[in-house]
Amino acid sequence: MIDKFELLGLVAAFLTTSAYVPQVYKTWKTKSAGNISLTMYISMFVGIVLWLIYGIHLNSFAMIVANSITAILTLIIIGFKVRYK
Amino acid sequence: MIDKFELLGLVAAFLTTSAYVPQVYKTWKTKSAGNISLTMYISMFVGIVLWLIYGIHLNSFAMIVANSITAILTLIIIGFKVRYK
Repeated sequence: MIDKFELLGLVAAFLTTSAYVPQVYKTWKTKSAGNISLTMYISMFVGIVLWLIYGIHLNSFAMIVANSITAILTLIIIGFKVRYK
Repeated sequence: MIDKFELLGLVAAFLTTSAYVPQVYKTWKTKSAGNISLTMYISMFVGIVLWLIYGIHLNSFAMIVANSITAILTLIIIGFKVRYK
């Protein structure tokens, strides 16, 4: 049976990860990334990769899942920013 | 001596937390929150509070520091969004 705190972590993972999806969709749809701060997303991306390493160290499934997906989403947003300016 | 993974966690905390500061500053300066998605920030805020509880459970100082500050920053952005529309 999954530990209730791990379940809480997975709900947290879902909420903070899915929060990025509207931004990815909006940027893709409008093909414009004007008001996105590249520094913010690069800082976020590096931080998320470090959280991923930290989560692996703590053997926390929720942190590994959340930070792997969020890393990919932030990388997509950075890609859009570079491409669409 | 601070454990090297806890140090890594603190660097991750600094990067992902400080990433919100430009958004808080920009919204405060421009007094406009037009392109901020309220649903995204509410989902982010609830998720961060859950990560805070998860971090307390894991006794992870880095997660507690990061999520406490990020919760406050996202709450400020939500406040601005409600106030400035």
